[in-house]
Amino acid sequence: MQRPAPQSFDRVLSSMCTEPHPAAREAAERFLATNPGDPTTYAAAADREADAVAALSRIAGLDGAGVAPEGNSHGYVTSGGTEANIQAVRSARNRRGVEEPNVVVPRSAHFSFHKAADVLGVELRTVPTDADRRADVDAVAAAVDGDTVLVVGVAGTTEYGRVDPIPEIAAIAHDAGAYCHVDAAWAGFLLPFTDHAWSFAHAPIDSLTIDPHKCGRAVVPAGGLLFRDSAGLDALAVDTPYLESRSQASLTGTRSGAGVAGAAAAVEALWPDGYRREHDRADRVARWLADELRSRGRRVVDVELPVVAADLGDGATEALRDRGWRLARTGDGLARVVVMPHVTRETLRTFLGEFDDVR
Amino acid sequence: MQRPAPQSFDRVLSSMCTEPHPAAREAAERFLATNPGDPTTYAAAADREADAVAALSRIAGLDGAGVAPEGNSHGYVTSGGTEANIQAVRSARNRRGVEEPNVVVPRSAHFSFHKAADVLGVELRTVPTDADRRADVDAVAAAVDGDTVLVVGVAGTTEYGRVDPIPEIAAIAHDAGAYCHVDAAWAGFLLPFTDHAWSFAHAPIDSLTIDPHKCGRAVVPAGGLLFRDSAGLDALAVDTPYLESRSQASLTGTRSGAGVAGAAAAVEALWPDGYRREHDRADRVARWLADELRSRGRRVVDVELPVVAADLGDGATEALRDRGWRLARTGDGLARVVVMPHVTRETLRTFLGEFDDVR
Repeated sequence: MQRPAPQSFDRVLSSMCTEPHPAAREAAERFLATNPGDPTTYAAAADREADAVAALSRIAGLDGAGVAPEGNSHGYVTSGGTEANIQAVRSARNRRGVEEPNVVVPRSAHFSFHKAADVLGVELRTVPTDADRRADVDAVAAAVDGDTVLVVGVAGTTEYGRVDPIPEIAAIAHDAGAYCHVDAAWAGFLLPFTDHAWSFAHAPIDSLTIDPHKCGRAVVPAGGLLFRDSAGLDALAVDTPYLESRSQASLTGTRSGAGVAGAAAAVEALWPDGYRREHDRADRVARWLADELRSRGRRVVDVELPVVAADLGDGATEALRDRGWRLARTGDGLARVVVMPHVTRETLRTFLGEFDDVR
Repeated sequence: MQRPAPQSFDRVLSSMCTEPHPAAREAAERFLATNPGDPTTYAAAADREADAVAALSRIAGLDGAGVAPEGNSHGYVTSGGTEANIQAVRSARNRRGVEEPNVVVPRSAHFSFHKAADVLGVELRTVPTDADRRADVDAVAAAVDGDTVLVVGVAGTTEYGRVDPIPEIAAIAHDAGAYCHVDAAWAGFLLPFTDHAWSFAHAPIDSLTIDPHKCGRAVVPAGGLLFRDSAGLDALAVDTPYLESRSQASLTGTRSGAGVAGAAAAVEALWPDGYRREHDRADRVARWLADELRSRGRRVVDVELPVVAADLGDGATEALRDRGWRLARTGDGLARVVVMPHVTRETLRTFLGEFDDVR
């Protein structure tokens, strides 16, 4: 008999991780002692990684275009979106080889790009977003120059769930001789059920982050980094003496077989119908929550993907935190609810009731 | 009823990971849906990380000297030794702030330092080892200069299990104004039961890598990075908007609560007596294996820590691999057996029997 979980997701409104799918959990438990970073020794984990990367590639539009037939996909299961984003910057930096590289990101980009800039020694050029909090295309165009190695678009921003104009950003990047990366870490399993242009199928982007351990319902840690072609991945490889295999492209060395196996199992269990159902549910619940808050006179940012950002008024966020709600704030000071699979309408009714108590 | 493990450790002689301790596995399974990278949201995982880091600090000699009293230790549970080594280089680079930083490592250092050099844009100066495969102190001294930010000593080399002269290396580093890092990723749970000078207690080193998921018997992924003082960790911090917490020092973002909880549980179960018993067993088995191979006329490198490197003769390594033995080679072409907890005398008797068949 297993002891209870160390904490519950009941009042977690701040996280982009969630309760894993049972199939993911079962697979993860079996693979806890394996290391896909040593693929010859841990062949079963390596096989599951190939399955996971092929599945992610299909979700991200790499088969419809005939670009990456199954078994010929280029990427790996990372520790999460931060590693994937760092590695996308590193690949572009290594491939372009300019003296003083810079990377252009919208101000809505995840803080992992700031970490990447520090780690990799590249200049980060942060450009404004437009009135609807999407990357301002003119500002992006003005920021790129001959030393730009990568231009980043976000498909599902962390704070407001916005999707940047990816085709336009890709065109600006390529006109400047730079690569284009899309960060769909959180929304990669939601966007296939929307009309947004976000994937390899919609624009000639070069790389993409999509995290199974967020909306993919894998266990932590399981991020995903995909490249359109092998050169993107090859630019990351270092030699690996004393492993049975010859080189390693990941940022970390030993990696989680549990994360890899869980990712493969979750995607097999849920793609596409399970993810579609969850997208539709989360979308409905987020819009309902926004309406409920508006009906209480609160200012709520228009919902696009299922993140609800709202001004709860002075002190309410702190009072709700004191009652055990895990609630984060945007940079502009709005409270932010991420409608993940564990965030149900029932949970939010309780939340609204307590909000009514404290406001 | 759980399905069987995806692969067995029966014939794995190449890995520095092993079957986790049952307490580690149980804890990991409970924490599979937690993220210590978001410590306010996942408070239980953050608490276990503090426990793990305090325990690792004690093992690595940070309490006896009164330098890091419990609750005041500086480090975190990484994804593994590669992340820890990259971060040690990054911290030193950031703290020293020279224009063209270099890092001095012995040629026996793990390939993660080559990865660190590429990632971080530092020059890697690789210096020879002496006749016994330890860092050559004179060569280290000749390689450092005013742009050296870090000098690395290895306590338990990956290929031959050698311990570099850590006090001498620390002195050279500090004379040059550089930091000193010890890589004890593999041997950190063996060295406390030897006479080697390797830890914070033995020399004024600044940082150290010690991996619970290797000889610590935690689940993958669980590495460890420790600093002597808080400034080492602070040099890695980046701001974290839209998390409830304020900054993040890790290289990855989301991290494995399973790895963290498993590490804490393993160390609590095994330190010190369990680890001492395993050290003594592995030492005996490694020396016995070396004797057995010598009695067959093979050249075997002197055993120091429980890695056995031997010339098995033409074709034998390949023939054994064909029979399912996972066996790696050193850069000099010797076969290498890592005597991890799953590598028993019985396993090695079978191995020797099959070696007798193929040689």
